[in-house]
Amino acid sequence: MKLYLAGPEVFLPDAVAIGKLKCDLCAKHGFVGLYPLDNKIDAPHDQLSKAIFEANVDMIERADAIVANLTPYRGISADVGTAYEVGHAFAAKKKVFGYSNVRTTFVERVRRYAGPLKQGDDGRLYGTDGLAAEDFDRFDNLMLAEALRASGLDVVTPDTEPADIARDMTAFERLLIAIAAVR
Amino acid sequence: MKLYLAGPEVFLPDAVAIGKLKCDLCAKHGFVGLYPLDNKIDAPHDQLSKAIFEANVDMIERADAIVANLTPYRGISADVGTAYEVGHAFAAKKKVFGYSNVRTTFVERVRRYAGPLKQGDDGRLYGTDGLAAEDFDRFDNLMLAEALRASGLDVVTPDTEPADIARDMTAFERLLIAIAAVR
Repeated sequence: MKLYLAGPEVFLPDAVAIGKLKCDLCAKHGFVGLYPLDNKIDAPHDQLSKAIFEANVDMIERADAIVANLTPYRGISADVGTAYEVGHAFAAKKKVFGYSNVRTTFVERVRRYAGPLKQGDDGRLYGTDGLAAEDFDRFDNLMLAEALRASGLDVVTPDTEPADIARDMTAFERLLIAIAAVR
Repeated sequence: MKLYLAGPEVFLPDAVAIGKLKCDLCAKHGFVGLYPLDNKIDAPHDQLSKAIFEANVDMIERADAIVANLTPYRGISADVGTAYEVGHAFAAKKKVFGYSNVRTTFVERVRRYAGPLKQGDDGRLYGTDGLAAEDFDRFDNLMLAEALRASGLDVVTPDTEPADIARDMTAFERLLIAIAAVR
């Protein structure tokens, strides 16, 4: 079973080493990890963006499932590139699995970002920025949360928030074990 | 040609009126707009999230293309629910079109959020948060930017940033005109 390893760790300076570690953990649990930076891309800078997109899409299509790191990235939600990939994989009939190294619900993070929240006339909770916050007890926007649930496993989080949310592998490995149990 | 109207305007208090306006603009330019809040959903609160997901996915599958409002939402990037939908639509072989009411590039917004940026040993630009910033002269993460380009139209922005980036329809209507020209 080939797992496409989506997530914002590609933006870390040690992204290659982290990909190696994730692929080693996949092998330990009987999976083959496909990591975006394993694509060897040789393109001039002005064509690099397109080449990376095409290589990532090809890798998703070759995978059986996606394992997405949905830890909030530079804000209240998952990385949008990862969110794109979850949607792409779901529509391509792949299983979509995900984990987050942050344990808060989406509405809690909106409260910190734009709180206090006040109930509007329509019954929804609104932030001080005038925008409603989804209040469904989910870890992020419902499109991500429900795509995971429809694949059979809810988001996995660690029992306590790790010191290094960008690199900790506790939730990732726990998710691999859960996937192995339902495969 | 049926256009699924994705975007974070569903979180505005006047979301229904904005959907009506967008659908009217679609009709003016020869399209049928499909707006998420047009789905009549009758579910208890604990099943609402799943019901909305399924209704949105069904609406995307019925559409010929998606027109995504990719204006940055509570941070440096597009709404992750909208990003999910762009990925879903692209994999489902729909055309994906998009606009943003913010004119800055992604790297400019990262600079404001986590600048100054410094070049790392790997040649990438890093923010003070230790994460690299994609520097491809794109409006957002490359997965979004290149999915749009692969469908034939780049992101559309207004000539000047409007006062109300959550509601302004200049770029949306300009995009409809561009879609009508390439359809």
